[in-house]
Amino acid sequence: MYERIKGFRDFYPEEMRPRRAMTDQLEETARRYGFREVGTPALERTQLYADKSGEEITDELFHFTDQGGREVAMTPELTPTVARMVVAKQQELSKPIKWFSTRPFWRYEAVQQGRFREFYQTNVDIFGSAEPEADAEILAYCADALSGLGLEPEDFEFRVSHRDILGGLLESVSTDIDTHEAIRAVDKREKIADAEYYALLTETGLTRSQAEQFDALLSTDDLSELVEFAGTERVEAAVTNLENVLEAAADFGAREHCTISLETARGLDYYTGVVFECFDSTGEVSRSVFGGGRYDDLIEGFGGQPTPAVGVAPGHETLSLLLDRADARSAESFGTDYYVLSVGDTRSVAARIARDLRERSHIVETDLSDRSFGAQMNYADGVDAGTVVIVGERDLKNDEITVKDMESGEQMAVPVESFPGEYDRPTYDDLV
Amino acid sequence: MYERIKGFRDFYPEEMRPRRAMTDQLEETARRYGFREVGTPALERTQLYADKSGEEITDELFHFTDQGGREVAMTPELTPTVARMVVAKQQELSKPIKWFSTRPFWRYEAVQQGRFREFYQTNVDIFGSAEPEADAEILAYCADALSGLGLEPEDFEFRVSHRDILGGLLESVSTDIDTHEAIRAVDKREKIADAEYYALLTETGLTRSQAEQFDALLSTDDLSELVEFAGTERVEAAVTNLENVLEAAADFGAREHCTISLETARGLDYYTGVVFECFDSTGEVSRSVFGGGRYDDLIEGFGGQPTPAVGVAPGHETLSLLLDRADARSAESFGTDYYVLSVGDTRSVAARIARDLRERSHIVETDLSDRSFGAQMNYADGVDAGTVVIVGERDLKNDEITVKDMESGEQMAVPVESFPGEYDRPTYDDLV
Repeated sequence: MYERIKGFRDFYPEEMRPRRAMTDQLEETARRYGFREVGTPALERTQLYADKSGEEITDELFHFTDQGGREVAMTPELTPTVARMVVAKQQELSKPIKWFSTRPFWRYEAVQQGRFREFYQTNVDIFGSAEPEADAEILAYCADALSGLGLEPEDFEFRVSHRDILGGLLESVSTDIDTHEAIRAVDKREKIADAEYYALLTETGLTRSQAEQFDALLSTDDLSELVEFAGTERVEAAVTNLENVLEAAADFGAREHCTISLETARGLDYYTGVVFECFDSTGEVSRSVFGGGRYDDLIEGFGGQPTPAVGVAPGHETLSLLLDRADARSAESFGTDYYVLSVGDTRSVAARIARDLRERSHIVETDLSDRSFGAQMNYADGVDAGTVVIVGERDLKNDEITVKDMESGEQMAVPVESFPGEYDRPTYDDLV
Repeated sequence: MYERIKGFRDFYPEEMRPRRAMTDQLEETARRYGFREVGTPALERTQLYADKSGEEITDELFHFTDQGGREVAMTPELTPTVARMVVAKQQELSKPIKWFSTRPFWRYEAVQQGRFREFYQTNVDIFGSAEPEADAEILAYCADALSGLGLEPEDFEFRVSHRDILGGLLESVSTDIDTHEAIRAVDKREKIADAEYYALLTETGLTRSQAEQFDALLSTDDLSELVEFAGTERVEAAVTNLENVLEAAADFGAREHCTISLETARGLDYYTGVVFECFDSTGEVSRSVFGGGRYDDLIEGFGGQPTPAVGVAPGHETLSLLLDRADARSAESFGTDYYVLSVGDTRSVAARIARDLRERSHIVETDLSDRSFGAQMNYADGVDAGTVVIVGERDLKNDEITVKDMESGEQMAVPVESFPGEYDRPTYDDLV
């Protein structure tokens, strides 16, 4: 027996059904906002990631040299790929560019609850608008998608921050610090001990007292206090931008889900403006459910013209944990509409009925295993068939078939010629 | 600027739309037959393929050693994976098991028209029935899916053969030949010169005259001639099975698409019974569009209990070529239902209207770039918006908005409170 690879999963139909329903909802909501689907490759040049995130990122990648000698990596995220695509056709594409796609990604990481080496995301991005309405549309998309999945407003919150507030505050504390590393430290804040957090911050160039001063600022509720403390245009502009995004989010119906949380930093280096993470309000799912934000410099960094961008990527694994916690899963069955049961030499009639029903878009199964009446009834029951159409030799001699309602168990004979006849979806109740 | 990897593709929205429509049709048809979706990993142990197809198969794989020292390969096809999944849960799964899934696969091959290193398939399989009805259901599924895609019966044909007829005939010609290699030679018949074909056949152990005799048998129309020639139970049983499958296919509505074609062998070693390939009837698409067949021994070969199986895997690349050739592509646009245009200080009203329309499931875009009236009208035109709802400051002072039909260019003012109001999808014509 062959083994599956660690961190990779098989989804049998029972597990796949809720995942598919989740994907459909995430995509259908994106379509309503005018996002359009793109398709992207599973492999990219390893350099694409190493250039952006440093060579050490390759430790987390499934990467190798292909038969043609290319250094390639299984894509760990979508953003660099869509950035490459925007750069490749930036003259032709009219702005704003609004794209979505659902796919697996791969990272060689420690496997834990809600984290696998193969994981799925629906990426939703807007390129070409620097306006707060674009950030707000991403937040509104998320709120609508989560509501569509059956979550209530009290189930989740978006913790919103701004990279330039963090960067600007650090700059005003000391000009000689490694801002990227300091922001990474903030991103880890909740997962590590205080001592380790302060150690990370002082490594970036802050003194211990500067680090404490900086940390105290992060928990303020009053953004004007930050502007005053920093006294720089940078922080003032960032605070204004964050306020404008939240105001647009109010118009777009997403403000109620947002809380300002400067501790929310997002680990990835390429974010530039507003960033946010979705959390389980109850804290039962302790990790961030998903996150997103603005990355205005990435396209230019990839050799394109300056193109502001903002996006989000709901991860299906953590989102599943939240849906389970909130008991927001629909209990829908596979919904087999009909089982057409054939006994004796009746296959051609049974097949005709099955075809007629399928042409009306119903889900229809028939016997493929030459089974007995009882075995077929068991199978029909197992696939949750709503109605069983019994095509038997004796009935057929009278030009009849039997229609059985599986919930009530009631059944009746009907003329074979009139089934399904004029009915779009004939059930036992229609025929009585 | 970063380059895409050879044989891998980006699909921009214009290319993705018809591909998505094709995927939806292939999957929707599978659902109507009661097939259920499964999800499968992108990596498997390289051994899974080497054991089944020989070490040389690894030349065609994207394979590597992962950070944990595992020999892994990017899946080149689905069948070994679903076989592994059936074996892993064979006690729990009730038979017949009917699964489908759509995914990319990867092979390191020469790139040519309709062949890429990353390619997409919708796999549809039945496990647990040896009856001809299972083979016929796969053929009927294919016929229904192709019709659903807009193809006419005269656009395609299924060339149907039987592995045991080929194997049995070879056996009756000579007991000392390499049957697998001989069948591979038959599979290549149409792509190679006669001399090369006969060279391949003689390498398998046939004499030149035996090879010619065998080849002549393949083009017969009369299956009973084959039974008579071979005089073995094996060939007789295979011919009977092929006839039974075609008879079931007649009941299931797929017989008209089938022609018997013993030259159709399918390259893969694991096939055992009926095999078939779909071809463009006009021959304009010269390669096989897709193929499938019975593989009764694979599950047992993977360490499971004997479990008959039959399946098909329409490949999206060659199927796209056929749809293009037959001009069967729907010309549908992205179908933006509304563009809500906001000028002046009207964002909150425009946003309220956009939300109301999206709640009614419409595709709605609004301004994200703080653009002028003219620029927004251009954008609305570019995204094929059916209706533009203009929310302007002056109109709003009169509690009005303007609804503009983009096809006729006609427009009228309507009270803002009554839009969208009771209408499910208000257009200019509803409001006049």
